[in-house]
Amino acid sequence: MLEDIRGKIRDIPDFPKKGIVFRDITTLIKDGPAFREVIDYFYDQFKGDKIDYVAAIESRGYIFGAPLAYKLGAGLVIIRKPGKLPAEVERAEYALEYGTDALEIHKDAVEAGKKVLIIDDLLATGGTVTAAAELVARLGGKVAGLAFMIELADLGGRDRLPAADKVIAMLSY
Amino acid sequence: MLEDIRGKIRDIPDFPKKGIVFRDITTLIKDGPAFREVIDYFYDQFKGDKIDYVAAIESRGYIFGAPLAYKLGAGLVIIRKPGKLPAEVERAEYALEYGTDALEIHKDAVEAGKKVLIIDDLLATGGTVTAAAELVARLGGKVAGLAFMIELADLGGRDRLPAADKVIAMLSY
Repeated sequence: MLEDIRGKIRDIPDFPKKGIVFRDITTLIKDGPAFREVIDYFYDQFKGDKIDYVAAIESRGYIFGAPLAYKLGAGLVIIRKPGKLPAEVERAEYALEYGTDALEIHKDAVEAGKKVLIIDDLLATGGTVTAAAELVARLGGKVAGLAFMIELADLGGRDRLPAADKVIAMLSY
Repeated sequence: MLEDIRGKIRDIPDFPKKGIVFRDITTLIKDGPAFREVIDYFYDQFKGDKIDYVAAIESRGYIFGAPLAYKLGAGLVIIRKPGKLPAEVERAEYALEYGTDALEIHKDAVEAGKKVLIIDDLLATGGTVTAAAELVARLGGKVAGLAFMIELADLGGRDRLPAADKVIAMLSY
């Protein structure tokens, strides 16, 4: 079953740059039954955890986070690149290979004590999700879970993850 | 019911620039029952239309398009800004107030004759969705529907929409 899902992901060599094999999820999500299976997999993992909010990281995180929030009956919170959220924000920076990037969350996105599941398509070095967890924590939210469609195990992101009650990666490469 | 949904949308004056009132959906989607109601509204509109693919426009289109694809049991196709899709693409340009922008779709995203529902959060002047429909048509897809969370009626986008079997805007301003 998991191997069927893996078989729907397309490998694209040398994207976005030479030497990188890009794991392309578009061939998976365009398959209705496979897409449904992915969302139901995450739902089964978290349905007993009383998740208040699914926090999805822009933009591929929305692809999995929005249906998961829908299915869980949770609210959907979006964590975006700088300058895109219109109201007051918290901002957290994180390191890239060269330089830094940042993520923002609305200050009123999560109330203190709420249980938040953070979701993104990919776990690579862990920088993005660490910044996302910092934002949730600054608002007083509790990081109840981290979920990823794909984990690139060689990059060691799992050893640098923020504290969370549960960590789920559907597929590991 | 629609008015309850409208009441969850936050008005932000002078964003992204002076004189514009930004309709902020983050306050709506973070409300689990309200978010569910929005998706179920679109589902009810299109459930009888045998939609093969929901094509969601980056990035806020994913917020509504991904759960709708899930609920309909359709595939999810993503239409992105240039340079983000890793495989071979079709590209369509569209005019902005100053200059142009473009959207891309994977060439293998949609097979000829398939019924495609295009969804975005906002209908403003209609430029974005017109480009999206052009991309779907170039692949041989049939634009079975256009769906928007919010229509800014003053901007007249509805008069410039591409041909589609059905056009649904949940809220009009």
